Amino acid sequence: MRHIYLVGIGTGNPEHLTVQAINTLNKADVIFIPSKGVAKAELADVRKDICQRYVTNKAIRFVDYAVPVRQTADRSYVQSVDDWHAEISSTYERLFQEHISEDGSAAFLVWGDPSLYDSTIRIIERVKARDRVALGYSVVPGITSIQALTASHRIPLNLVGKPVQITTGRRLAESFPGMVETAVVMLDGEQAFSKIDDPDAYIYWGAYLGTEDEITIAGRLADVSDRIMATRAEARARHGWIMDIYLLRKGSDFDDQA
Amino acid sequence: MRHIYLVGIGTGNPEHLTVQAINTLNKADVIFIPSKGVAKAELADVRKDICQRYVTNKAIRFVDYAVPVRQTADRSYVQSVDDWHAEISSTYERLFQEHISEDGSAAFLVWGDPSLYDSTIRIIERVKARDRVALGYSVVPGITSIQALTASHRIPLNLVGKPVQITTGRRLAESFPGMVETAVVMLDGEQAFSKIDDPDAYIYWGAYLGTEDEITIAGRLADVSDRIMATRAEARARHGWIMDIYLLRKGSDFDDQA
Repeated sequence: MRHIYLVGIGTGNPEHLTVQAINTLNKADVIFIPSKGVAKAELADVRKDICQRYVTNKAIRFVDYAVPVRQTADRSYVQSVDDWHAEISSTYERLFQEHISEDGSAAFLVWGDPSLYDSTIRIIERVKARDRVALGYSVVPGITSIQALTASHRIPLNLVGKPVQITTGRRLAESFPGMVETAVVMLDGEQAFSKIDDPDAYIYWGAYLGTEDEITIAGRLADVSDRIMATRAEARARHGWIMDIYLLRKGSDFDDQA
Repeated sequence: MRHIYLVGIGTGNPEHLTVQAINTLNKADVIFIPSKGVAKAELADVRKDICQRYVTNKAIRFVDYAVPVRQTADRSYVQSVDDWHAEISSTYERLFQEHISEDGSAAFLVWGDPSLYDSTIRIIERVKARDRVALGYSVVPGITSIQALTASHRIPLNLVGKPVQITTGRRLAESFPGMVETAVVMLDGEQAFSKIDDPDAYIYWGAYLGTEDEITIAGRLADVSDRIMATRAEARARHGWIMDIYLLRKGSDFDDQA
């Protein structure tokens, strides 16, 4: 049976790799490298840099492949993601049949951690469900952008004994600040923080976390919101792409002491 | 100025260490090792194992220290934690004065990640606020028990485009399943999952994650709740301690397609 390793690689700093990730990459027969087009060329470079630094097993073959583009016309967000996953599953199935021997193994380098706002696990499950290639797989965790954010700002993710919500830009308004004291927002294409009007909210924002281009801004949301918007727009124009994340917080440790 | 490194070490598997964590430990002049009493001797062994494997700089000094015990009599939970942090701050201040030269550095090995349900960052901030020792510090992220849980179960943390709540046992009933589709529960001394009555909920449970003693159970909550309770009680009695975590989920990917 073929075995697939889904290896979390962290968020751009090659030193985010764990010993487990390095050892796992070196066990694979094949490493699949996605080519995603020029806009995110820096991200492709990180994968290559990681392989050059840590893959010492010379027998390993590297196979490039093109990731299908998500189609958004004439369908809902959810339908668009579902269709996209179906297409990537077909691509993976073909890759496995063509490049891995029947008892061989392969690894994918997954940005961040395979469990968090990443769909590689789901797609491997789809390939298994199609049942044309017999597969096993395992997951190696990696440093997430949430952890890179809190480490750079040197803040705890949670207030003492209190919950944290991880959510998306489009859902932020439902949850913050009415229901939660801490919200971490990923995948926010619309800068939902800028529409939150709360004089007590603090924001901890970061872009390109873990890379040499890392930018962080923190402060009272009302004070720094415009600066984040301007910094983000300028950086995005300069790089041609942006990956950012932020934490919104209201309240403080021990403020429920009464 | 003294510099303190707070280094996340993951959850018991020495291979969870990142390259950044290993390089940081080897930069320190001193590594502080907590001695927590015999009940969790296995946890102390993990720290020693990590240092033996990865600390190659022979000039590094190791300093053991006793962690104060949290007092719970005659005070609220929050007050008890606040008092405890104050006492640990005094311990740290003394350690820094006695064992680090004025421009020297030291490292703490922090279980999991320093940002998640850990208070080392808060305590260092208290020491800084007391202003008797001039300090800088930095944070190195590590693999959390949430990631160890999802990796072992090979599940995504979130459903597609949906939020995740990280919470504690005592708060679970407030949030699940009314408000959130996915809840991760840490620090649950009372097995709050066993009081959730929801025929559609699934649970993914794990104990001693990342270690050789790892146990995982998954299934429909109503079907496996009793088995988890029994397994947990037996393992706790055998080890003398337990660290466990679980994810509760309701719904599935793409079920909001309508």
